[in-house]
Amino acid sequence: MKKHVLIVAGGSGQRMKTQIPKQFLLLDGKPVLMHTISAFYSYDSSISIYLVLPEKQMEYWQKLCKKHQFPISHTPVAGGKTRFHSVKNGLAAVKTGGLIAIHDGVRPLVSRQTIENCFRKAEEKQACIPVVPLIDSIRKINDKQSIALDRKNYRLVQTPQVFDLQLITNAYSQNYCETFTDDASVAETFGAEIELTNGNSENIKITTALDLAICETFLLKSDK
Amino acid sequence: MKKHVLIVAGGSGQRMKTQIPKQFLLLDGKPVLMHTISAFYSYDSSISIYLVLPEKQMEYWQKLCKKHQFPISHTPVAGGKTRFHSVKNGLAAVKTGGLIAIHDGVRPLVSRQTIENCFRKAEEKQACIPVVPLIDSIRKINDKQSIALDRKNYRLVQTPQVFDLQLITNAYSQNYCETFTDDASVAETFGAEIELTNGNSENIKITTALDLAICETFLLKSDK
Repeated sequence: MKKHVLIVAGGSGQRMKTQIPKQFLLLDGKPVLMHTISAFYSYDSSISIYLVLPEKQMEYWQKLCKKHQFPISHTPVAGGKTRFHSVKNGLAAVKTGGLIAIHDGVRPLVSRQTIENCFRKAEEKQACIPVVPLIDSIRKINDKQSIALDRKNYRLVQTPQVFDLQLITNAYSQNYCETFTDDASVAETFGAEIELTNGNSENIKITTALDLAICETFLLKSDK
Repeated sequence: MKKHVLIVAGGSGQRMKTQIPKQFLLLDGKPVLMHTISAFYSYDSSISIYLVLPEKQMEYWQKLCKKHQFPISHTPVAGGKTRFHSVKNGLAAVKTGGLIAIHDGVRPLVSRQTIENCFRKAEEKQACIPVVPLIDSIRKINDKQSIALDRKNYRLVQTPQVFDLQLITNAYSQNYCETFTDDASVAETFGAEIELTNGNSENIKITTALDLAICETFLLKSDK
């Protein structure tokens, strides 16, 4: 079945207090996004790669690709005002059917196994997302108090979230809603059942300078 | 008010596939536990420090202290068969009242601010624990399905968990129960209300070789 990936990179860099959006920061000498794109290309060199970027960052990205002589072919798509609208724009750019992975641009350390797990189960069940168990205890908070939960019953959700293209395109035709926390919740609100599979613990979302350093450490450690 | 800290180090090293329990692994040239003890001593040099270790590791720890000329005075206490029993043994060793922090030995990067937040609020409210928001989405799993939750309503729980000594000692006189996921849940089952305060994101629990590398990275970055 034809495979696509939509890599969503909407960050503006405010959280890390840097002028450069985090998807462009250097990790082992290359912008984060190039690692992310390479992870999917290494998994399957025939995959169609779409990269959703804020419109005003597209020229800068082209310059980076030239500078780093980035060889992997991909289609840039202009994002929208929220992540929901960015994904919607991205989906509209995909021409043929099959399966589509939607992945955070700032998760460069997704493993081949995680990508494979998601595509394999989505082929069978139409919608599959990677999850990992919690290491810490977890509490639910209300206005004035909080309660302890049993962490065994909870999972943290990563990307890529892989869907039948038609299913997720239809789901994204719904109106935007604040309870959409990720693509799975959009599909779920539309009536889809979501399968879970194992993610990989180092598949973290880079949101702080420390996260970037963590990824750097992991890349150094995994160099054989 | 008199302050104590009970540092709980029960790990046997099985999860990291190493012969050396993780609390003894070297971080920036020193065993993890020495960093943890130093964090509390730096916060308040008059704090009473109790270290709960499996009985069979106590001799090894004494040797490590000699080898590294570790200068911070502390009282070793033999642990029990579960974390619950280890904490209970530790509490029995504390002689005077006041406030007690219960802290995972393998969280060496707890910040001064986190420790201070917990002690300050516990002085007022008897029980306070540090929490951090979730970066990833979260789902609740059942036997056959899972549902998306709104991550804004959840917090991940760290240590130190700080309590009035009498309160937590009484709480630990309850029978052991499987739903005790941390000290706060023991206190809560006993009827205590738990206050929350801000933890620090780098205050991770070392459970894998990658976590150790992450802590190493953080220490290097924070060296001025």
